[in-house]
Amino acid sequence: MALDRLKSVAQHITGSADPPHPFDPLSRQEIEAAVSIIRAEHGKLHYNAVTLQEPRKVEMLKWLEDTSKPRPARIADVVAVIPGGKVCDGLVNLQTGKIVKWEIIDGVQPLITMEDLNQVEAVVRKDPKVIEQCILSGVPAENMDQVYCDPWTIGYDHRFGSNVRLQQALMYYRPHIDDSQYSFPLDFCPIFDAEKQAIIHIDIPEVRRPLSKAPPNNYHPAAIEKEGGYRTDIKPINITQPEGVSFKVEGRVIDWQNWKVHVGFNYKEGIVLNNITYNDKGTERPIFYRLSLAEMVVPYGNPEHPHQRKHAFDLGEYGGGYMTNSLSLGCDCKGAIHYLDADFVNRAGESTTIKNAICIHEEDAGILFKHTDFRDDSVIVTRGRKLIISHIFTAANYEYCVYWIFHQDGTVQLEIKLTGILNTYVMNPGEDTHGWGTEVYPGVNAHNHQHLFCLRIDPNIDGPNNTVFQVDATQGAGEVGSKENPYGNAFYAKKTKYSTVGEAISDYDGVTSRTWDMSNENKLNPYSKKPVSYKLVSREVPKLMPKENSLVWKRAGFARHAVHVTKYDDEQILPAGRHVPQTSGEPSRGIPEWISDASASIENTDIVLWHTFGLTHFPAPEDFPIMPAEPMTLLLRPRNFFNKNPALDVPPSYASTPSQVLSGKGVMDAADKMSKLVVTGSEGQCCAK
Amino acid sequence: MALDRLKSVAQHITGSADPPHPFDPLSRQEIEAAVSIIRAEHGKLHYNAVTLQEPRKVEMLKWLEDTSKPRPARIADVVAVIPGGKVCDGLVNLQTGKIVKWEIIDGVQPLITMEDLNQVEAVVRKDPKVIEQCILSGVPAENMDQVYCDPWTIGYDHRFGSNVRLQQALMYYRPHIDDSQYSFPLDFCPIFDAEKQAIIHIDIPEVRRPLSKAPPNNYHPAAIEKEGGYRTDIKPINITQPEGVSFKVEGRVIDWQNWKVHVGFNYKEGIVLNNITYNDKGTERPIFYRLSLAEMVVPYGNPEHPHQRKHAFDLGEYGGGYMTNSLSLGCDCKGAIHYLDADFVNRAGESTTIKNAICIHEEDAGILFKHTDFRDDSVIVTRGRKLIISHIFTAANYEYCVYWIFHQDGTVQLEIKLTGILNTYVMNPGEDTHGWGTEVYPGVNAHNHQHLFCLRIDPNIDGPNNTVFQVDATQGAGEVGSKENPYGNAFYAKKTKYSTVGEAISDYDGVTSRTWDMSNENKLNPYSKKPVSYKLVSREVPKLMPKENSLVWKRAGFARHAVHVTKYDDEQILPAGRHVPQTSGEPSRGIPEWISDASASIENTDIVLWHTFGLTHFPAPEDFPIMPAEPMTLLLRPRNFFNKNPALDVPPSYASTPSQVLSGKGVMDAADKMSKLVVTGSEGQCCAK
Repeated sequence: MALDRLKSVAQHITGSADPPHPFDPLSRQEIEAAVSIIRAEHGKLHYNAVTLQEPRKVEMLKWLEDTSKPRPARIADVVAVIPGGKVCDGLVNLQTGKIVKWEIIDGVQPLITMEDLNQVEAVVRKDPKVIEQCILSGVPAENMDQVYCDPWTIGYDHRFGSNVRLQQALMYYRPHIDDSQYSFPLDFCPIFDAEKQAIIHIDIPEVRRPLSKAPPNNYHPAAIEKEGGYRTDIKPINITQPEGVSFKVEGRVIDWQNWKVHVGFNYKEGIVLNNITYNDKGTERPIFYRLSLAEMVVPYGNPEHPHQRKHAFDLGEYGGGYMTNSLSLGCDCKGAIHYLDADFVNRAGESTTIKNAICIHEEDAGILFKHTDFRDDSVIVTRGRKLIISHIFTAANYEYCVYWIFHQDGTVQLEIKLTGILNTYVMNPGEDTHGWGTEVYPGVNAHNHQHLFCLRIDPNIDGPNNTVFQVDATQGAGEVGSKENPYGNAFYAKKTKYSTVGEAISDYDGVTSRTWDMSNENKLNPYSKKPVSYKLVSREVPKLMPKENSLVWKRAGFARHAVHVTKYDDEQILPAGRHVPQTSGEPSRGIPEWISDASASIENTDIVLWHTFGLTHFPAPEDFPIMPAEPMTLLLRPRNFFNKNPALDVPPSYASTPSQVLSGKGVMDAADKMSKLVVTGSEGQCCAK
Repeated sequence: MALDRLKSVAQHITGSADPPHPFDPLSRQEIEAAVSIIRAEHGKLHYNAVTLQEPRKVEMLKWLEDTSKPRPARIADVVAVIPGGKVCDGLVNLQTGKIVKWEIIDGVQPLITMEDLNQVEAVVRKDPKVIEQCILSGVPAENMDQVYCDPWTIGYDHRFGSNVRLQQALMYYRPHIDDSQYSFPLDFCPIFDAEKQAIIHIDIPEVRRPLSKAPPNNYHPAAIEKEGGYRTDIKPINITQPEGVSFKVEGRVIDWQNWKVHVGFNYKEGIVLNNITYNDKGTERPIFYRLSLAEMVVPYGNPEHPHQRKHAFDLGEYGGGYMTNSLSLGCDCKGAIHYLDADFVNRAGESTTIKNAICIHEEDAGILFKHTDFRDDSVIVTRGRKLIISHIFTAANYEYCVYWIFHQDGTVQLEIKLTGILNTYVMNPGEDTHGWGTEVYPGVNAHNHQHLFCLRIDPNIDGPNNTVFQVDATQGAGEVGSKENPYGNAFYAKKTKYSTVGEAISDYDGVTSRTWDMSNENKLNPYSKKPVSYKLVSREVPKLMPKENSLVWKRAGFARHAVHVTKYDDEQILPAGRHVPQTSGEPSRGIPEWISDASASIENTDIVLWHTFGLTHFPAPEDFPIMPAEPMTLLLRPRNFFNKNPALDVPPSYASTPSQVLSGKGVMDAADKMSKLVVTGSEGQCCAK
C-alpha cells in the first residue's frame, strides 16, 4: 500500500503535464521519492548520493530526434551506506516506483560528502593522542578549539586498504578564530575511521617540526586595515544590460546566438552540458552530445611519507557538485545573471539545495573581427559576445572556478581559474625543502603539485559516428633545393587517424602544435572537401609527474596520457571509476579498464574523447596567503564544419565599404555610445567627458 | 644662418620648460626640426623614417635614478632615400641641431612605407603586360579598374638581389568595388621597381588558373542583408565608468594600481613600454626596462614558386607603427578610453599623425581571488581589474590586435588577436592543394602559414643585472620503491642557468611545461630564499616550419629557437636587422650576428631575452571571408619577487570571517549593486529585474 502510494507520487512528478527534460537533474521531489521508495524496502540508510542516471544514449537520441517518441524514464542512481559500512549501488525507476538494481559491494568507498568531512574536526579535537601531539607541537591542551583540520580522503594507504572508510586529517592551528590556518600547519596526520567515528592512527614524522612562531599572515579586512588599508584608487566599472540578456531559457535549455545547450549538474562533475547544437542557417546541427569535467587529480611532489597520500581526485573523491559555492550577484559575476540551483540528497535522505550553484551570463568579448582596406580606410569592426556557464567549487584549501564559454564563431572554450589557498606543511627554521616545495612564509612549506583535469568530450559532429585524428604541423618532404621543396618552406597538417583504441593513446607535442580533430568522415565540407570537424586546441598539457607504477599513476590512469578515445558506453562516465576513494590502483579503474582491448575499433562510430590537461604548480610567496587566480584555457573550434565564418551576421559597430567612403553615404555607425573619451587635465588627472 | 635658426628652434622644442620625457616619441615639431636640419645640409630627399633614437641605456638609467642629472639628448634616427635609390642612415641631435651621423649604405632596402605600397596599384593597372595577363585570366582590358593588388616586399628573390627596391604585387579582382577581392585572386605576380616606378617582371605559373567564376563572398552589410540580415537578438551590454578611470597620465607615463609604465611608440614596433615599475609598499621596484614586439615573420607553406616569397616580416618590412589603425570609441574598445596619437614623417619630410593610435583603458578582470572556508562559509571574493594598452595594425589582408595587459597581481600579459582576411591564391576546379593549403571557397586556396612573433624583453628585475634560468618540471631521481622516492611521486622545478649566449639558445618543451625565469641573483626573496624573478609563461611556441638553410630560416634567424639571450647593446633592437626588405639571409642579420660569440657571458649582467612564439594556421572555410579573431597569449609572472600576493589590498566585493559569521556582525558587503538577476517568465523569455 505504502509503496503504491509512492509510485503514484513518483508518477505524478515525472508524468505531469510539464515533465522534466530527460537530461534535467533530479528535482527535490524526485530525490525524495527515490529515497522513500528505497526506505520502504530497505529501511534507514546513510545516503551518499541520489542523482540522475542519465538516459541511455540510444533511447535519448531517438527521443531528441522526435520528442513524440517515448520519453526516457527517470531513473535515480543511488549510493547508500548500510550501517556497518557496506556500500549499496542502486537504481530506482521513478516512473514505475521500482528499485531496478540493488547491489551491495565490498571493498569500495563512495566519495566523501561534506557531511563526512564535517565530522572529523570535532573528533580530532577530543582525541587524547591528538591532544598529546598538539602539546608536543606547542599547542597547549586547553587550546584544542584552536586546532583545525582539513579532512582529505586517505587516497590509498596499503596499511589500511579499502574496506575501512578513512579520512586523513591535515592539521592546522589558528591563534585566533579568524586567522588563516594555512600559515600554521602541524606536522602530524591523524587517520579518522568513519564507521568508528574515531582516530585510529596518527602518522608522526621522524623529524619533528613544532608550530611556527611567525606572526599570522592574513588576507581578511582587519589584517589589511592594519597594514595601511585598502587601496582607494579603483573607480567603478559598471556593467549593465538595460534590455536584459540575449538568451532564452526553457527549462534548463539555453538558447543563445544559434547555440542550444542543456545545462545539467551532478554531484561529481558539477556542470554537465548536453545536446549542444548550433543552428546553421535554419538547420540545427548537433556538435556535442555531452561535455563535462569528469575527473581530476592533484598529485603533490614531496616524496616524504605521508605526503604521497596528497593526490586528491577532487571530483571523484569529494564531488565538484557537492563542493559548489552558492554564488552572489556582483561578486562572482557581473551584469544580468541567470542562476540555477543544485539539488542533492543529504545523509539522512532529505533533499537539499545549493542556491545559485550555476551562473549563466553574457560578457562583451572584444573584437570579433575587423578589417581595414589600407587603400581607402574602408573598414568593418564587429564586437563579439560570449555566453558563460560557470560554477565554483571549494576543495578544502583550493577553489576551482569553471567557465564554459560559448562564442559566436562556433567555438566552445573551457576556462578554469585556480585560486584559494595553497596546501601547506610546516617546516623548521633553516630546513631544506630539497626542491619539493617552497617556503612561502616563515615556517610554511608549500609543496609542488599538479592540477590535472580530465575533460570528457562526447562528440556528436553532425551525428554520433565520429573519428578522431591527431594533427601535427609537419615539414614537407624534400630538403632545401629538392624538386618537391626547392625553398624548404613546405609544411602541412599531418593527420593521423586513430582507428583503434590503442592508436589513440597519445601525448601532447608542443613542437608540432599538436591538436586533435573530432570528425564526421561521412560528411565533407563542400568547399574544403575535408570532413566536418571540431578541433581540440589545448596547450597546457603537462606530463603526469608521478612515475610509472607509482600510486598516483596506478590510481589516476586517465592522467597517463593527454588523449584516450573509447567507444561510447553508457556506463563510462568517470575516468577513475565510479567509487574512487581508497582504490589501490590494482587494477586501475576507469580508462585503463576501458582501453584494455587496444584493437577495438573507434573509427566512424560513437566515441568519447578523454583529454587530460592542467598545470604544474611550483609555489612562490606571491601565491600566499591567498592565491591570485591562475587561468588556464582550452578551445573546441569548428574546422571545416561551417561553410563560412558563422558570425558574419553579428551586427558590426562600424562598417564602411569603398564606395561608401568615396560617396560619403551609407556608412553604418552603430558604435556603442556609452563609451567616453578620457581627457587628461593639467594636473595629470583623468576624468570622463 | 639658416642652420643657426634651426638649432634654436630645436633647442626651443626640446629645452623648453616642459621638455619631453627622454622616452617620448619625437613630436611633430621635433620630426620637422630634424628634417629641416637635414634639408639644410642635404637638400631634398625621400624620407623613410624619422623616429626617436632611444636614449643610451647607461645615460638613461642615471637620469631615471636622479632626474636632476643631465637629461639624455633628443636624437632623431633618420632613414632617407636619395634620388637614385641610395639609402642614408642618419642621426640628428635635436639639442645641438647637428647631424651626428650620415651614412650612405649600399645593398640594403629600408622598409616599405604606406606611401610606397600605395604607388603600386596604379602602375600595375596601366602596365601592358599586366593587362595582357589579366585578359588571359579572364579580366577584360576595359575592367582594369577592377584589378587590385596587395603589394608586398619581395622578401628576397635571388634573381633580383638587394640593390633594386622591389615589391611583388599579389593580384586580385573585384567584380564590384565593394566586393572582397580575396575571393578572386589572380594567378600571376608582377614585380614593381620603386625607382623606375614600373613593372620589371611578371612571375607566371606553369599551370594557369583563370579567374574564379564563383559568386562574390562578402561580409559587408549589403551582403548580409541579402542573406537574411543581421541577427536582432543581441541585447546591449553597457560598460560605463561614471567616476572616470583609475589611472593617472603624466605625459606618456601611466600610473595605475602600483604600476608605472612609459608608453612609447615607433614606426616599426608600434607600442614600446619602458621603465615598467611596481610600487611595492612604497618602494618603486624596476621590473622591465623595455618591452616590445620587435619583429615577426609569417612564412607560408606552399613550395611552388613564387609562394616561397610570401614570408612577411610585418614589423621590419612594413612597420607595425606605420600600419596602425586610428581607433574608434565603442568599436575597438569600450568604457572610458584614453588615446595617444602617433606622429610620423612622410616621404616629403612633413610630419603626419595617426589619431588615436594607442588605446589605454581598463576592464573588469573577473575574480582576482576567492576562498570559502567549508566549515562555516566565511568567504572572501575580490574582483580584479586590468589595464590594457593596445594598438591594431593592418598588414594588407591581416589585422593584428596587440594588447599589453597589466594585472593587479603583478602579471604582465601580452595578448594578440589575429583577424582580418586570409591571404588567398586562385585554384582550378578539382585541383589538389597537396595539403599546402585549404579550399576555403570555390576557387580560393588559402595557404598554410605561421605567425611567429619576436617579443623583446629587456628585464630590469630589481636592477639591470639579471640572469635567465630555464625551468622544467622534472621527476625526482629514484624509481618507485627506492629510498629517496619510495612512492615515485617526487618532482621538482629543474633550473638550468644560462651562463653563456650559447647555452641560452633554447626551444620550447611542452612536456616539461618549460618556462624561463629572469632573475636577479643578487637579491633573494626573504621567505623562499630564491632570487627575485619574473617568469615567462608561453605555451604557443611552434617550431619554425621552413627547414634549416631555407630562405626563411636564413632571413628570420630569430625564429629558429624559442629563446635567445644576449648581453644588452643599445644597437640591438630589431632581431632581423635594421633594414629587413630584400635581405638574403647571407649572412643572417640580427640575432644570428649577436649570438656569434656563443661563449659570451650573460650571467648576472644586463641582458635581453628574445622570445619567439606564435601559431601555425591551417585555414578552414570558417576563417573566410573574414576571420573570427584568434587569440594568443603569454604571461610575465612575478615569482619570488613579492613577499606575498601584492593584490591583497584590492577591496573585496564581499568578505566575512568565521567570527563575523558566528556573530552576524561586521561582514563587508561591497558587491556591485548594478548587477541584476534574470528572471525567467512563463514563456521562457528573460527580463532583467
